Amino acid sequence: MSSPERDLRVAVVGAGYWGPNLIRNFSEAPGGDVVAVADLSADRLVAIRKRFPAVRTVTDHRLLFADPTIDAVCLATPISTHRPLAEEAFAAGKHVFVEKPLAGTVADAEAIARAASRAGRTLMVGHTFVYNPAVVAVRALLVAGELGTIQYIDSQRVNLGLHQFDFNVLWDLGPHDVSIVLYWLDEEPEWVQCTGGCFIQPGIEDVAFLTMGFPSGAIAHAHLSWLAPSKLRTMTVVGARKMAVYDDVQAVEKVKVYDHGVDSLSPDELRRSYRAGDIHSPRVPVTEALQIEVRHFIDCVRTGAVPRSDGEAGLRVVRALDAGTRSLRAGGTRVAYRSPAVA
Amino acid sequence: MSSPERDLRVAVVGAGYWGPNLIRNFSEAPGGDVVAVADLSADRLVAIRKRFPAVRTVTDHRLLFADPTIDAVCLATPISTHRPLAEEAFAAGKHVFVEKPLAGTVADAEAIARAASRAGRTLMVGHTFVYNPAVVAVRALLVAGELGTIQYIDSQRVNLGLHQFDFNVLWDLGPHDVSIVLYWLDEEPEWVQCTGGCFIQPGIEDVAFLTMGFPSGAIAHAHLSWLAPSKLRTMTVVGARKMAVYDDVQAVEKVKVYDHGVDSLSPDELRRSYRAGDIHSPRVPVTEALQIEVRHFIDCVRTGAVPRSDGEAGLRVVRALDAGTRSLRAGGTRVAYRSPAVA
Amino acid sequence: MSSPERDLRVAVVGAGYWGPNLIRNFSEAPGGDVVAVADLSADRLVAIRKRFPAVRTVTDHRLLFADPTIDAVCLATPISTHRPLAEEAFAAGKHVFVEKPLAGTVADAEAIARAASRAGRTLMVGHTFVYNPAVVAVRALLVAGELGTIQYIDSQRVNLGLHQFDFNVLWDLGPHDVSIVLYWLDEEPEWVQCTGGCFIQPGIEDVAFLTMGFPSGAIAHAHLSWLAPSKLRTMTVVGARKMAVYDDVQAVEKVKVYDHGVDSLSPDELRRSYRAGDIHSPRVPVTEALQIEVRHFIDCVRTGAVPRSDGEAGLRVVRALDAGTRSLRAGGTRVAYRSPAVA
Amino acid sequence: MSSPERDLRVAVVGAGYWGPNLIRNFSEAPGGDVVAVADLSADRLVAIRKRFPAVRTVTDHRLLFADPTIDAVCLATPISTHRPLAEEAFAAGKHVFVEKPLAGTVADAEAIARAASRAGRTLMVGHTFVYNPAVVAVRALLVAGELGTIQYIDSQRVNLGLHQFDFNVLWDLGPHDVSIVLYWLDEEPEWVQCTGGCFIQPGIEDVAFLTMGFPSGAIAHAHLSWLAPSKLRTMTVVGARKMAVYDDVQAVEKVKVYDHGVDSLSPDELRRSYRAGDIHSPRVPVTEALQIEVRHFIDCVRTGAVPRSDGEAGLRVVRALDAGTRSLRAGGTRVAYRSPAVA
Repeated sequence: MSSPERDLRVAVVGAGYWGPNLIRNFSEAPGGDVVAVADLSADRLVAIRKRFPAVRTVTDHRLLFADPTIDAVCLATPISTHRPLAEEAFAAGKHVFVEKPLAGTVADAEAIARAASRAGRTLMVGHTFVYNPAVVAVRALLVAGELGTIQYIDSQRVNLGLHQFDFNVLWDLGPHDVSIVLYWLDEEPEWVQCTGGCFIQPGIEDVAFLTMGFPSGAIAHAHLSWLAPSKLRTMTVVGARKMAVYDDVQAVEKVKVYDHGVDSLSPDELRRSYRAGDIHSPRVPVTEALQIEVRHFIDCVRTGAVPRSDGEAGLRVVRALDAGTRSLRAGGTRVAYRSPAVA
Repeated sequence: MSSPERDLRVAVVGAGYWGPNLIRNFSEAPGGDVVAVADLSADRLVAIRKRFPAVRTVTDHRLLFADPTIDAVCLATPISTHRPLAEEAFAAGKHVFVEKPLAGTVADAEAIARAASRAGRTLMVGHTFVYNPAVVAVRALLVAGELGTIQYIDSQRVNLGLHQFDFNVLWDLGPHDVSIVLYWLDEEPEWVQCTGGCFIQPGIEDVAFLTMGFPSGAIAHAHLSWLAPSKLRTMTVVGARKMAVYDDVQAVEKVKVYDHGVDSLSPDELRRSYRAGDIHSPRVPVTEALQIEVRHFIDCVRTGAVPRSDGEAGLRVVRALDAGTRSLRAGGTRVAYRSPAVA
Repeated sequence: MSSPERDLRVAVVGAGYWGPNLIRNFSEAPGGDVVAVADLSADRLVAIRKRFPAVRTVTDHRLLFADPTIDAVCLATPISTHRPLAEEAFAAGKHVFVEKPLAGTVADAEAIARAASRAGRTLMVGHTFVYNPAVVAVRALLVAGELGTIQYIDSQRVNLGLHQFDFNVLWDLGPHDVSIVLYWLDEEPEWVQCTGGCFIQPGIEDVAFLTMGFPSGAIAHAHLSWLAPSKLRTMTVVGARKMAVYDDVQAVEKVKVYDHGVDSLSPDELRRSYRAGDIHSPRVPVTEALQIEVRHFIDCVRTGAVPRSDGEAGLRVVRALDAGTRSLRAGGTRVAYRSPAVA
Repeated sequence: MSSPERDLRVAVVGAGYWGPNLIRNFSEAPGGDVVAVADLSADRLVAIRKRFPAVRTVTDHRLLFADPTIDAVCLATPISTHRPLAEEAFAAGKHVFVEKPLAGTVADAEAIARAASRAGRTLMVGHTFVYNPAVVAVRALLVAGELGTIQYIDSQRVNLGLHQFDFNVLWDLGPHDVSIVLYWLDEEPEWVQCTGGCFIQPGIEDVAFLTMGFPSGAIAHAHLSWLAPSKLRTMTVVGARKMAVYDDVQAVEKVKVYDHGVDSLSPDELRRSYRAGDIHSPRVPVTEALQIEVRHFIDCVRTGAVPRSDGEAGLRVVRALDAGTRSLRAGGTRVAYRSPAVA
């Protein structure tokens, strides 16, 4: 953007389930403005115009990519379209915000990252959770060393329904856990292991258990499911000094930090006993994560800063999901994070 | 037992952590009586005599096995001693109650089951949870078909501490999940997969993720951990018609049954949406499971009935744990439940 | 309204804290439309125009009352203005929706009800909770006799902050409990008793304990507080046969019905022991109560039906709050629901 | 007691519901020993002998009071017998532990306290909760001034059943709240107000709402009920600086301390908004309160120290319950804590 005083003019491509949230948040963000929306469905565009009367709507996104007054493009389209649309947008000189996951294959993700680099434009992936104040609060604890060396992370991310028919629960819910864990641990996994079940649609896993092993020795495990009686969003971080629980379903006490100590060592009993200690729940701001994320994108475009969830971060998530898929297909065998072809 | 009027005279071997619970429960059970306790530690026997003044105490269990007035022997000793002690007790014509797990190897478990069979005496394994009223209530739902076909079971069995130094969390907490799941599903797994981590003691897993696949297509998964901020004892059973949650940590509402329905099918959206329905929590009796278990043993000895947790049941649990261990050692590969050598 | 095909044209007076919610809900309701908003503050009207560009805004409400194309007026103004504004609106032939409480005095509430009656227009009070699906579900249980005779109702309606300076917690939070209890019990109290404390502002109770006694023998008690560490919205209904808990803070299981039975009668022990039974949580629709309420108003205006929360219902709530105030001022003495002057 | 080396020899009078707990705890306490039990029922004594074979049992308590080897008497008998039995015990030179409440009337309570004083022996009342580690932890917060000036305390002490036929819920559950509140606030109430309902037995309140006003301005309110769907044991302490919740039903996090702050002052909006802050849950030891209490009695007898729950403390509780009864009988009017006759 030439002039920092002017609002960033954003076009949103894709007005389905998630698109309106992006339109609303970019519209409300200081320094941002949604000027146009593209969608193949004229019906959806009618609904968008009713809710956002000032927005221009088109069925052909190329009209927007060709518009020199548009600074940035926000892609909320099916995963398989991310690469062609992003490459097109970068070729037109736009900054690009892509919904998560960045792509459905490692090759596509790499191509998008390359395109951004070539164009010298900002690429950001919509890993909203790494902007969630509770996730950020846990990261701050980790950076400060308050939990000690991280031993393992266990996640429960399950709920009833919203079964996707074009991709499985690993690619639907998994990007959240992978992006959060990589953000927290600040390292890439060495190996990935995944087991799952297809109970509703043949060939589409609706339940998956994903495990990742890290160079530091840490293990991260996630239970992902579309078949669960209650919505659970709980991540437990076990450190050598303290433990933390991040429970996104709670209205208050989203983060709890648990002290503990060794109570006694009784060698004859062949056991070591821990005792619980104080529990502390730091106040976490209630700001909507999507709003924080959108402002971060605007800020990165303006200043040229590298987004927290840049192309590389998005690529790492796709690599882990790809490895999980390879493990699933191989019957749950542990596979290398970097596929042989890539290494 | 010849005379049904007389109380079953029980000798308990092992007066450590769990022994006193067995002594108390056998003493309080109608038709049962603990007449003697053996332990290698004279100190422990002093404590036993103070609490149970009428009980005979010896350091050499052979004195009790040789006593013809003793009907049954209850083994609460380290796992590696189960086989020799049980074989000795059966040879002496005693009925035998063995604490879980039945043995540390498949070969030992098989030998114990054979010894019981040869002696024509009752063998029961202390899988207390299959006598827990809440576990029994869930089994009744399954038998009645109320949940429909079982798709998967997820278990969280984690807590802080009591690290064992001679065996890992899989053999410590795992017997509970395996015995419950096998009791509920009424089938043996085809394959077992296990991943874990050793964070406190080298070579002793304090965290394990165990997955079992069944011929029916059902999957059972358990998170077992000695490194967790809170005690969790939650098992979720997902059926095609309904779902159930058994939460042993709750004082009330230990069992909840969740209705649900398909809310809408929107093919263009490529998703299927479920909606939550009524939730029903059946009243579960508060009787102590150990008391129910002990009465069941007395009853089986008297009537010759086969215990719910007989030698075969105990052997199946050992087979699953053994397969889990093989998977762990093989880096998390899925292994056959029946080891090649056995098949 | 002459023509049922035309949308009801609504003017909202008062664009402060609650006004925008009414504007949004009347706009979204089928058959309703907010055409104009009046507020003394030009700043607030700017914000309204930004969010609702199609709405006419005025600082003088009389312009709207004089507009013959406006069918109904919605008052979201300070309590003391309810009477003059409502009388003016009825005099202009409008239907009137008044935010709760209907008025600050019994005399004012009676005057508003009389004005509605004289004008032959619909008067409805914004007791949103009697349109809340969970409250309606409990009412259905009561009407069906499922709980048996109601013995007592206990309510916890407490949270941190939002201290009002012009009226106390009894008049702020109390209208909810009183309107719900009167809707559930379908009777008016005989006596009211209220104790409270003024801890932040002299003379403004921020904590109040309200008790009402009913002809049926039922008692209703409410703890109302602006000084509480957590938000609680729990109402417990104790019946002779069953009990129900309505907890509005829960995302699921908002309503639970508790079975119970007499466990044993031990006259020598001089006690009677109850035992808990099954717990059932009926599915409650998640529709926003305010939307249901607004549609009900539109429907009553169209059909001439009497609103569930009509002037009489609003007057009964004011009578109870007035009695509570008299009790507070008299040091917590029990007072008659109908003040001497009225009786 | 002449010799500090010797165990305190205790006789327990009353072997009903609570008696066995006292026998067990005095037996397990270092420095204590239960040597004899008196009960009018021979059947109960049979049960006591079975469980505690070493204990002498008598139906006539006078045999024990006359026994010079018995140091202390523990009364777990009906309330109306407390005075005559305690006076007899003091006359025989025994130290006396009386179960709560100390007596059923102020006159009786005063007489017992006088008898103790005349005899120069220790009198302690079984207000177990003031020895509960969580209650003590809250007291420590108050003494340290961490909560600031206490504004009010709200208590929910309700559960299903165990209806007493000889006294009401105020005298059954109320002693807990009154003893805790007086221990926390360290002051006596000025006035007491109580409302209630008799839904099962005519004339026996099974539900009561008790309010007490204190010279400091603090108010304490308690909801006491035998008719409730769930067991609640929650006390909320609201201070000017912080708030605390003591929830005895929780296995962990029995005490939580809530920080908060004023978020904004918007005079034009006529409200003050608070925001929630950090929440801290200090570790509370899990020692059984009854064991701590019993050791405290033994210690006070040995050293001559004044028990935390001495005769004066017990008398204050009886005064408050007596005032509550007077208020109940007067239809819920606020009454003076000190009855006119006493003042």
